[in-house]
Amino acid sequence: MTTEPKQLFVNLFEMACVSHITHGLWPLPGNNRERFADLDYWLELARLLEHGGFDGIFLADVIGAYDVFRGGPETALREGLQSPNLDPLLLVPAMAAVTDRLGFGVTFSTTYEPPFAFARRMSTLDHLTKGRIGWNIVTSYLPNAARNFGLDDEVPHDERYRRAEEYLDVLYKLWEGSWDDDAVIADREARVFTDPAKVRYIDHVGERHRVAGPHIVHPSPQRTPVLFQATGSPAGIEFAGRHAEVVFTGGRTSEEFRRNADGMRDSAERHDRQRDDVKFIAMAGVIVGRTTEEAEDKWRLYQQQSSLDGILAHSSLPVDLTAFPRDITVREALARAEFPAERVPFLPLDKTVGQALDFVKNSRDDRFLVVGDAKTVADEIERWLDEDGLDGINLRQYHSFETARDFADLVIPELRRRGRLPQAGERSATLRERLFGDGDGRLPERHPAARYRGGANLHEPALAEAALPTR
Amino acid sequence: MTTEPKQLFVNLFEMACVSHITHGLWPLPGNNRERFADLDYWLELARLLEHGGFDGIFLADVIGAYDVFRGGPETALREGLQSPNLDPLLLVPAMAAVTDRLGFGVTFSTTYEPPFAFARRMSTLDHLTKGRIGWNIVTSYLPNAARNFGLDDEVPHDERYRRAEEYLDVLYKLWEGSWDDDAVIADREARVFTDPAKVRYIDHVGERHRVAGPHIVHPSPQRTPVLFQATGSPAGIEFAGRHAEVVFTGGRTSEEFRRNADGMRDSAERHDRQRDDVKFIAMAGVIVGRTTEEAEDKWRLYQQQSSLDGILAHSSLPVDLTAFPRDITVREALARAEFPAERVPFLPLDKTVGQALDFVKNSRDDRFLVVGDAKTVADEIERWLDEDGLDGINLRQYHSFETARDFADLVIPELRRRGRLPQAGERSATLRERLFGDGDGRLPERHPAARYRGGANLHEPALAEAALPTR
Repeated sequence: MTTEPKQLFVNLFEMACVSHITHGLWPLPGNNRERFADLDYWLELARLLEHGGFDGIFLADVIGAYDVFRGGPETALREGLQSPNLDPLLLVPAMAAVTDRLGFGVTFSTTYEPPFAFARRMSTLDHLTKGRIGWNIVTSYLPNAARNFGLDDEVPHDERYRRAEEYLDVLYKLWEGSWDDDAVIADREARVFTDPAKVRYIDHVGERHRVAGPHIVHPSPQRTPVLFQATGSPAGIEFAGRHAEVVFTGGRTSEEFRRNADGMRDSAERHDRQRDDVKFIAMAGVIVGRTTEEAEDKWRLYQQQSSLDGILAHSSLPVDLTAFPRDITVREALARAEFPAERVPFLPLDKTVGQALDFVKNSRDDRFLVVGDAKTVADEIERWLDEDGLDGINLRQYHSFETARDFADLVIPELRRRGRLPQAGERSATLRERLFGDGDGRLPERHPAARYRGGANLHEPALAEAALPTR
Repeated sequence: MTTEPKQLFVNLFEMACVSHITHGLWPLPGNNRERFADLDYWLELARLLEHGGFDGIFLADVIGAYDVFRGGPETALREGLQSPNLDPLLLVPAMAAVTDRLGFGVTFSTTYEPPFAFARRMSTLDHLTKGRIGWNIVTSYLPNAARNFGLDDEVPHDERYRRAEEYLDVLYKLWEGSWDDDAVIADREARVFTDPAKVRYIDHVGERHRVAGPHIVHPSPQRTPVLFQATGSPAGIEFAGRHAEVVFTGGRTSEEFRRNADGMRDSAERHDRQRDDVKFIAMAGVIVGRTTEEAEDKWRLYQQQSSLDGILAHSSLPVDLTAFPRDITVREALARAEFPAERVPFLPLDKTVGQALDFVKNSRDDRFLVVGDAKTVADEIERWLDEDGLDGINLRQYHSFETARDFADLVIPELRRRGRLPQAGERSATLRERLFGDGDGRLPERHPAARYRGGANLHEPALAEAALPTR
């Protein structure tokens, strides 16, 4: 008896800015990153991904400047580090116009904008893409983002998750509970578009939000977009176990990754879901060449060009280690800066400043990084799938569009030969069906959003109350 | 000496719903309105408009249900009256992907969503469309919209304009003041994307908003989108005189229209702008046929099919006149409903209910309505331009795509022959240049937004304070 090999889900990781996660590389010859505000950039990229066999494009986002490092936004601006940065939701309709199957993941924060407007935006995108949309749920972390939305500083971490619980409750009521599937009848003879008996107010009254409804958009193919989340904190793991369908996680080793994934699956079970209701996607670095040497040359170039300033500004490290002599220890540098070492436990305190900076710049310490020819890469990806239990990757870009084109030209055909990717054109209709391989594109009945279907439970006390971490 | 004849600016008036303003017509044979949630509808339409010679498409919006009439949303739902209704901003990138010159007007309310996020969305759209975006500034009027955004009822009318003043002040600081034109240098050799000396925080602290900035998007072709507004109230006229570049207005007669336009020009002068800094666009009904008879037949069909229920629900009239005998007076009907007649002075109180309803259903009492062949229509449009001083029209749709196609096939060639429209492909780059015929696509120096250029006045007391109507 043979079983089908496990297949990979392949996203390109993107952001509408010059320098997303591989800082210092935008000036490389032929790199298109500075065209990020040009619509044609996104149309070309979307066509390349769809024709190349990618499953989706995943758009990161921030809503403020990285202005902690060196006490201002100057480094981030110079590096093009996630600023300027366009609204990611607005890129999707354009890319949908030139593709039929490509999935779209968009990042949006539950902390600052009204849920009614966001519910409508996602329903609009799910209609326009015919069910190809996913949402990366974030709660925002930049202090400057808070200051752009009327606050003095970030909302504390666990409080952000409390708020996110209520936010999702409102969204589920609008997406799942406000309209029945057969509400729109479009009966030309009777001249009735919607049957009003199948539509209802939600009348949500919660701690932070009051939303009457009805939802302003009729049911879309998936209703609730595919729910993505990236997290590691205890509050975040509880939240993801309850809500997330796809979790971004990673690890320095296979063991660390599996531990993270198992913790998340445990959390899903605690919330009456099944262990395989959650899929795992890791950000992966794949540098592939026609030969091993070609791949190694590229990787060396990327490391040489990598910008330490960009990495440090991105990390929001409040102490500028580059301002200290390279031969003193990190601990000594922090002491000179009068900065408490216990606030930065992730730093190698007893290494020299020089060693620490070299480590940051050249880190290869990641389970999901591979450099080599197509065979080497495919072998490694098979290990990720079979040994680690990974379900998919968010491909990190070093060069646009070379990274994506190399993967499409060299890796995808090899993975197809091995049965690790579907053949061209084989993918099913909605993003959710593609990820989970069955169902009708809707959330399963055991997901908490389903409790509002048909208008049930709309006027019960918010489920979120019970699930909230205590303050 | 001859002068060039005045040219017309032609928008199609649209909304992402079944029934926008011509209720009861969506079931007509061949009408595509029920495809409003299908991306292809918008792609087909955008291509038709661009190739047909339209200048733009103008998207209306509401963010709640019409649930005043008959005390609930049932009539509006049955009619498809502006519900369901997709987010209009998300349609623009898709239409931009298949056009090069078509302009886009989008409606967005200053009352409920944070200005930082909206500033970013519009800057994104201005980049993606290469300067083809306009914004119809509204303050929202539906009670249900208020209840979707956490309030018990509408914010009172003049207070909404007070809030809008501050909202615009924040937007102008972000759009005009936060980045200099030469901030983005994209210097590959120096590996510097943005010169940080040319970017600044705005640190807005006002009555309702606190926004730090810097703006998250670099300067787009127009920076501030073209500012549209529709208003008639005293507070609205003051606001438009200060901010609007294009005002939607109308009138039952030529005199009424000219009085409205003159009042708006007076207001512009009071705000240190010039009388011709404001253009006027009227919603126009143009029913054109190859013969007069064909046009009259269409018009009769549209009137027969017109839905009185749709019109009444759209009007948010709190008394349902259809529930009374047709032969009593409106005044008597209101008395029976115990509804104070002074709250609805626009109703013909001494006519019978039957007369009032017939009038509502068949009203032709509009200066900007013409039914006839191409010559008749073009003659009438020339009168609108030359006698009334109109600058453009928002074409009301009765049938999608027939209304637009008829106008493109029959009226546009005739107006071109008369020099009333540019020849194909002649229009200039940005929407603002197209409307005003000169400049660099930016607001003129005398517009209040210009005071923040180069970072000036950012930390002065908000200009809005002085301009606010007293409470």
